[in-house]
Amino acid sequence: MRKKLTASPSAEDISLAHERIKSYIHHTPVLTSELINRQIGNKLFFKCENMQKAGAFKSRGVFNALLQLSDEEKSQGIITHSSGNHAQALARAAGLLGIKAIIVMPSNAPQIKKDAVKEYGAEIHFCEPTLEARESTVRQLIEKTGATEIHPYNNYEVISGQATCLFEEKSNGIAYDYILAPVGGGGLLSGTALTASYYMPGTKVLGCEPENADDAYRSFISKRLIPSVSPSTIADGLLTSLGDKTFPIIMDHVDSIQTASEEMIVKAMRLIWERMKLVIEPSSAVPLAVLLEKNLSIRGQNILIILSGGNVDLTKLPWNQNK
Amino acid sequence: MRKKLTASPSAEDISLAHERIKSYIHHTPVLTSELINRQIGNKLFFKCENMQKAGAFKSRGVFNALLQLSDEEKSQGIITHSSGNHAQALARAAGLLGIKAIIVMPSNAPQIKKDAVKEYGAEIHFCEPTLEARESTVRQLIEKTGATEIHPYNNYEVISGQATCLFEEKSNGIAYDYILAPVGGGGLLSGTALTASYYMPGTKVLGCEPENADDAYRSFISKRLIPSVSPSTIADGLLTSLGDKTFPIIMDHVDSIQTASEEMIVKAMRLIWERMKLVIEPSSAVPLAVLLEKNLSIRGQNILIILSGGNVDLTKLPWNQNK
Repeated sequence: MRKKLTASPSAEDISLAHERIKSYIHHTPVLTSELINRQIGNKLFFKCENMQKAGAFKSRGVFNALLQLSDEEKSQGIITHSSGNHAQALARAAGLLGIKAIIVMPSNAPQIKKDAVKEYGAEIHFCEPTLEARESTVRQLIEKTGATEIHPYNNYEVISGQATCLFEEKSNGIAYDYILAPVGGGGLLSGTALTASYYMPGTKVLGCEPENADDAYRSFISKRLIPSVSPSTIADGLLTSLGDKTFPIIMDHVDSIQTASEEMIVKAMRLIWERMKLVIEPSSAVPLAVLLEKNLSIRGQNILIILSGGNVDLTKLPWNQNK
Repeated sequence: MRKKLTASPSAEDISLAHERIKSYIHHTPVLTSELINRQIGNKLFFKCENMQKAGAFKSRGVFNALLQLSDEEKSQGIITHSSGNHAQALARAAGLLGIKAIIVMPSNAPQIKKDAVKEYGAEIHFCEPTLEARESTVRQLIEKTGATEIHPYNNYEVISGQATCLFEEKSNGIAYDYILAPVGGGGLLSGTALTASYYMPGTKVLGCEPENADDAYRSFISKRLIPSVSPSTIADGLLTSLGDKTFPIIMDHVDSIQTASEEMIVKAMRLIWERMKLVIEPSSAVPLAVLLEKNLSIRGQNILIILSGGNVDLTKLPWNQNK
């Protein structure tokens, strides 16, 4: 029987996660835009997790967790609550590995994400769009089915998986001065910060968050976990609060949390669509939005930006609503 | 003084063009999608010229032509007529090389393309949206200014430049059974067919065209150049007729011309946006649309599809108009 991770992942845990999942996921490309570089005054490198399996980095954590389940756990199925990309990635991975998946989704999740989860063959249970309703629905279903919960971010196997995103770029020949990742629940940010601390000493890691969902910023500043309360942002992947596993890692290994306005998030998203020809979701645009806000005085630096996902409803684009 | 190409480009001409322009353009990535492969039943490789400088393959031909101008020609400026991507690419390249550019555009060109040409610092002259009006406006301006015309496709230097798109993939380790490229004026298709004939014997080259603008198909079948008359297609890059330089190369080196319906072009475009997270313009979707129509009985083959460009007005997407 596998030994579950009971503490913050080590360098070896991340390296093992990389070996474990690499045949199931894409080594996503890192792309650049001279035009955006000129505009920002730094050299930006965009890690395209929007092109990852199921359209987001979430496939990494999910595969790392599922591939370590015991046969008994596999036979009883898995369960999670998620507003979107984690649900899609988990449904897809479980389907591929022949594991039954139950997904608890808030009733207000985007239709495109509900449809995708159904397509991948998972069972959906809807609940009220509050963290309490989501967690209690999961608890009830676990009692009934014996399913194993795969939390979207507050899970060390999931964190190790997300850490592989930066891990696979550690030897690409570019010395990054900064790494910018969006932060919602903190799975991607904490994993990224761990990888940087082990393999890229001297590289600064910044979490990037919408002003309108700035619980991570407030938690970081006040050094205590402040939950997100009715956030309202276009970056629908960043609505969740940090967890008790992600928050301490972020406190230890992240250099700062930066915020961006809704207007700048839309502007950054459109810039990436128009100039890089990449379909990204609003959450992915938050790091570039932070740089566009020009609150950071960085010039001439190598900056890796993680484009976290590309699952967006093409019939509801933010720049069409004001036209 | 340089010797202008007076005949169909040789293998050496294409190789020289590649050396000449390679520091000015991107070696664009080749991407794949397992999901689309399963749907189509072949292994598709997408050459991402939507990520090329100025958002389209046109930058290749333009740089190859401009870099061979004499100092005297450079001092008198250059001129062209174009409905879009060629104009943008030429305006950008001329700006970079310090050459004055005059662009004759049809009055009905998309606003996004007019704006881009202006931003790159070119002088725009508008004319009626007919080939006759475009050509006569160019002639008048040449008489007045002494500018050198850089035709969008009916120019051997331009054709050699477009030929470098496939040239840079000739040694990438993949043996392509088919290459599918969109066809408008035939610059990309003729250049691609020449490169294939020199470096990939046995690989079939197919031109792909909207049913609603099928002048290349009709020309190919009847073996005489039939001009395009009031075509009506969403693929706004493919409205032009073949030229007397591109048509003979296409007759000699292209295996067939295939057509696709408007509905399938939109479907293919959306599939690439949603599944590959790539912003492409409708013209780029025509080859995949041809495969989706299933008129070709190809299974299990390696197919390279050239995604010709990504310049699209994000506020006017075809799937929003029926919603």
